[in-house]
Amino acid sequence: MQITVLAGGIGGARFLTGLRQHLRAAYPDGNGGSTAEVTVIGNTGDDIRLYGLQVCPDLDTVMYTLGGGISAERGGGREDETFAVKQELAAYGAEPTWFGLGDRDTATHLVRSQMLAAGYPLSAVTEALCARWQPGVRLLPMTDDRVETHVIIDGDSPGTRKAIHFQEWWIRHRAAIPAHGFVLVGVDDAKAGPGVAEAIRDADVVILPPSNPVVSVGMILAVPGVRDAVREARGPVVGLSPIVGGAPVRGMADACLTAIGLEVSAAAVARHYGARSAGGLLDGWLVHTPAAAEANESAAADDAHYVAELTAAGIRTRAVPLLMTDLAATTAMAAAALDLAATLRPAATPGG
Amino acid sequence: MQITVLAGGIGGARFLTGLRQHLRAAYPDGNGGSTAEVTVIGNTGDDIRLYGLQVCPDLDTVMYTLGGGISAERGGGREDETFAVKQELAAYGAEPTWFGLGDRDTATHLVRSQMLAAGYPLSAVTEALCARWQPGVRLLPMTDDRVETHVIIDGDSPGTRKAIHFQEWWIRHRAAIPAHGFVLVGVDDAKAGPGVAEAIRDADVVILPPSNPVVSVGMILAVPGVRDAVREARGPVVGLSPIVGGAPVRGMADACLTAIGLEVSAAAVARHYGARSAGGLLDGWLVHTPAAAEANESAAADDAHYVAELTAAGIRTRAVPLLMTDLAATTAMAAAALDLAATLRPAATPGG
Repeated sequence: MQITVLAGGIGGARFLTGLRQHLRAAYPDGNGGSTAEVTVIGNTGDDIRLYGLQVCPDLDTVMYTLGGGISAERGGGREDETFAVKQELAAYGAEPTWFGLGDRDTATHLVRSQMLAAGYPLSAVTEALCARWQPGVRLLPMTDDRVETHVIIDGDSPGTRKAIHFQEWWIRHRAAIPAHGFVLVGVDDAKAGPGVAEAIRDADVVILPPSNPVVSVGMILAVPGVRDAVREARGPVVGLSPIVGGAPVRGMADACLTAIGLEVSAAAVARHYGARSAGGLLDGWLVHTPAAAEANESAAADDAHYVAELTAAGIRTRAVPLLMTDLAATTAMAAAALDLAATLRPAATPGG
Repeated sequence: MQITVLAGGIGGARFLTGLRQHLRAAYPDGNGGSTAEVTVIGNTGDDIRLYGLQVCPDLDTVMYTLGGGISAERGGGREDETFAVKQELAAYGAEPTWFGLGDRDTATHLVRSQMLAAGYPLSAVTEALCARWQPGVRLLPMTDDRVETHVIIDGDSPGTRKAIHFQEWWIRHRAAIPAHGFVLVGVDDAKAGPGVAEAIRDADVVILPPSNPVVSVGMILAVPGVRDAVREARGPVVGLSPIVGGAPVRGMADACLTAIGLEVSAAAVARHYGARSAGGLLDGWLVHTPAAAEANESAAADDAHYVAELTAAGIRTRAVPLLMTDLAATTAMAAAALDLAATLRPAATPGG
């Protein structure tokens, strides 16, 4: 069983912990692990060069989360983190001051930056870093080329626009400045990282986890060759809605959807990805319906009403609980995604 | 009053605190400072590139010490230092593991490395770093070119030799491996940093503080043009012995002297520098004699017996207490050095 996941940061990483847990039970290797292999295509559009260091927030969030080193409190960065380097950089007046660079995290960026400077591609660097963290998945950057997601916002004088780095918009401005769009700077000269297209094409199942569909999954799909690889994948492509009842489960995905003219709903995201049968990306889609306990609360969000409509549009849709409240709930989501995939192209999930 | 000091790390930095204190009293500016100006030519042979960072231990020791940020306990590095970055680098298996890179210190190296990568010369970077620390002296790297002191030691097979970085020999091996000599790698293509030769030539007094005469002062003198500038300085050149009673006051200078075939004594160091009147560097030299309190102890080291011999050799020598036990003692040493200078070329110390 080969599964490929296109993942952003926190949402994707958390989903992957559930997927790993499910696979250990569903495809046990008799040794506590799983015979199923997971390849993660990581978003590098969030990457930013700070103080001469190459910082890859999404790759690191996946690596730290699966490697047991994530800060559960902050969602990103390292556990038990300290901030002496950041405080000293501020004392020197080094810009920017809004990025929460931790001391432990700094070591990761030092190792990465040193290897990059020595000529290793980001994919090799990521593999080297993962040799320590043992995330239990193969983590591939979407590209070895340097790309950066920039956000188009209003300029300083009326009628003008300017672009700022995604991290500046996201962290410094907390996505509160209206965005007119997103640009993956460098994408024209970028190509998919080694093994990326193959991992998608040859997977038994491709999963779009509940990551940000615009600035995470969207940027992975923007890398030349990746969207085509998803379209041509031999296995089914199943997605999980990051929007529950008209709002993102976490983060500020609504600001990103609005920026590209989309409604903030599970159906709008599915239509944005599109049905594979109509030139899009999705064979299957999971939307949220409250679990039995939640369903008794009248205000519980429920997107189950989209099931028939989306299925009719060529995306076989199911409603399951999609709140990653704990590992059990997240594991059940991963199981539901694979269950749905099995109904789509049974021939594509042989063996184990 | 213009004073130029050729300084290494801890010994030079500590002497400079005394010099600064003395000048505030001897040449007060009425505002708590001094009208006298001190230029420090800093040793960069100790510099080492670690984890992609350009680390300048001696420059930083001077900057932190005079800026009030030094770790008094360790003598180098920052006060209240933490070591999360170092521990994490070790967890990644990043080499070397023997260098005590602190978190606060890391920020200094990040700012420096980023500026160097952007094309600023080390002198401009040092000036920028000092804008924060306000050391009260003008700190000039001996050269803007990258040079590194390497140590020649026995090779792995009999009869062979190899070179290792000075820091590896000094810190990792604690200078315990016999050295056959020291090489300033890169010196052939290096030139003195901007203002270095002028600061030496035009100073009212040039001071060689009790820094390591081989790997600190010796490396500064090895930069093309520096030795000539000292020889041609219009002011007197006065040195302070780093050796007291046949042993270095601190550090492992004895291993360095032995490596280049010198006796470990105040006289041998003076002869090594040589009399300016005979083509060498020194006009005056201070050797150690115990203070009144110490003199009552029979075992107190006393190098006063060298005074006549060295003076006869053209280096006017005086014996004063040379232990930098506290700021008062260090201030008295600086005063003694300037007193001696005033007897050598009174015309060179006009005004104030």
